[in-house]
This record gives sequence, C-alpha cells and structure tokens, in this order.
Amino acid sequence: MRVLGIDPGLRCMGWGVIRIDGSRLSHVANGVCTSGSGPLASRLMALHVALTDIVATYAPDAAAVEQTFVNTNGAATLKLGQARGIAMLVPAQAGLAVGEYAPNAVKKAVVGVGHADKAQIAHMVKLQLPGVELAGPDAADALAIAICHAHHAQTAGRVTAAARRAGAA
Amino acid sequence: MRVLGIDPGLRCMGWGVIRIDGSRLSHVANGVCTSGSGPLASRLMALHVALTDIVATYAPDAAAVEQTFVNTNGAATLKLGQARGIAMLVPAQAGLAVGEYAPNAVKKAVVGVGHADKAQIAHMVKLQLPGVELAGPDAADALAIAICHAHHAQTAGRVTAAARRAGAA
Repeated sequence: MRVLGIDPGLRCMGWGVIRIDGSRLSHVANGVCTSGSGPLASRLMALHVALTDIVATYAPDAAAVEQTFVNTNGAATLKLGQARGIAMLVPAQAGLAVGEYAPNAVKKAVVGVGHADKAQIAHMVKLQLPGVELAGPDAADALAIAICHAHHAQTAGRVTAAARRAGAA
Repeated sequence: MRVLGIDPGLRCMGWGVIRIDGSRLSHVANGVCTSGSGPLASRLMALHVALTDIVATYAPDAAAVEQTFVNTNGAATLKLGQARGIAMLVPAQAGLAVGEYAPNAVKKAVVGVGHADKAQIAHMVKLQLPGVELAGPDAADALAIAICHAHHAQTAGRVTAAARRAGAA
C-alpha cells in the first residue's frame, strides 16, 4: 500500500510517497510543488495541476494532510487555508480517503515526542526511510505525515485483526 | 458578457451569474451550493463539483470572488480559506480571470456606502436586477460581487476608451 503525505503551503507544498509492506516502510518519492508569483487563482491552479500529476504518477492508496496550525495572523491562516483546500481536494478527486493529523501527532509518530524541530524530523525521516534523498524541509515534513498515517493505519489494522480473532474465538 | 460572482463559505457557497450589455445589467441565475456534513475532503469536493457544473452550465466570461474577512477566530478563518481555495480554483480551471473584491468595495458598489446589512444588500440587488428571485442571503451577496465586478469592468472600459480617444486625437 502506498501513502501520499502532503504538507500544505501556498508558496511551497511539500509531498512525499511511501510504501507500506506489513510493518516495513520504504521511500517512493518526495518533492516540493511551488506556485510561482502570479495571481492567487493561478497559483492555486498550479498547485492543483502539480498535485494531480503526482497522484496520477505514484497512484497512492491513501493520503494524509497535516492539520494546519492556526495562528494569530489571520492573513497567513487564510493563505494557508486556501492552499490546504487544494491539498485536501486533489486526493479526494482521485477517490482516496484523506487522513488529517495535527503537527504534534506527526512529530510524536516520527520523533517520539510532540515537539521537534525541522532538522530532527528530517533526521528521523532519513532513519526510517533508508536511502531517501530529501527535496527540502517541506518534503521531509510531508514524508513524516505519510509515516504518521502508516503508524495509525497499522494500529487500526492490528485492532481490527485482534477483534476478528476475538470474534472467531 | 457574463460574470459569475462567488461568496465563499464551507457550509454554504453563494453564487450568482449576471449579464452585462453596455451599462445594462440583468440577472441570469443564482443559488447556493452546500457541502453536506461528511469529512472535509468530501465537502470540498462537493463544492468543486457543484461550482464546476455552474461554470459549465452558465459559461461566464469572468468571475469575481469576495475577499474573505479575516477575523480573530483562526479556526473559522482556516475553514473559510479552504472553501475560498475551491472558489478561486474552479473559474481559473475554466480559463477565466478571477477578480477579488473586499466586502466594503462590494457594498459600496451595490449600496453606495461601505457598510450595509444583508437585508439592504438583498434590496439593492433586487432593484438592480429586476425580476430576480434570490436563493438566499449568500446568493444575494454573490450577485452583489458580480455587480461590483461589472462596475469595475465598466470603469476600466471607459478609461481604456478615453485613453484610446486621447491617443487618436
């Protein structure tokens, strides 16, 4: 199973695809989509085109998007929201379920604690996905989101399997 | 020329199409797209499908979206931002230029002053588009945004025409 992680941003949208085989994770691809400097509508369309292309190329089975940190700067929150709308839309258009994870849940899944800086996240992503070459911090964050989704999916899978065994017993 | 106005919102997205013949405006259609109560990605997709259908049905030549009021409630701003991302994306995907107008610019264009309540806007929209039946306050706001765009387009047209005459003289 393949998972696409997306770290939403209007200027730079990080993305990363990982593969899950049982409890083994491996890297498929990662990168950053940029939206240029034109009018807002064109920038959002550029992100939509790029993400749609990524979904078509890597055919993920599920997607996960970081829950945006709402800060006191309303204008920044609004910009991020617009980009996040596109990040949520594209996988949904491909028929994928889209998971949402708070930044501290992502950090906890990847680093083991709810607070970690970008360098620490990149380091742990590299440890968990041997051989990966990161396209930048936004791409590392996107892979971390995909890893977080993989952990949650595995936990959910174990719970389901245990319930099934308990039901059969 | 036809103009599509959009009043962005995650729960209710108002839309309205008007026709401009010289200085004469007339109503074409208006309505409200709703996104239901499912997961966020599905709600955004429902809005994308509905708006894409509206653009295909009424074939506007231009679009205008209200600039969202950024308030101190970050979570509300983020929700609105995500819906606004879809509102900007759909006309851009159809190759339309997308104008953006601040709420007080819209009110000034329709009511004559920068502050007006919803009832006043609906009243003035009805006066300017005889025979219109409004699908609700969000649809009235969307028609107001389209009217605002028409006024700005006409002013821009007159300025261009005057410059052309001045150049020819």
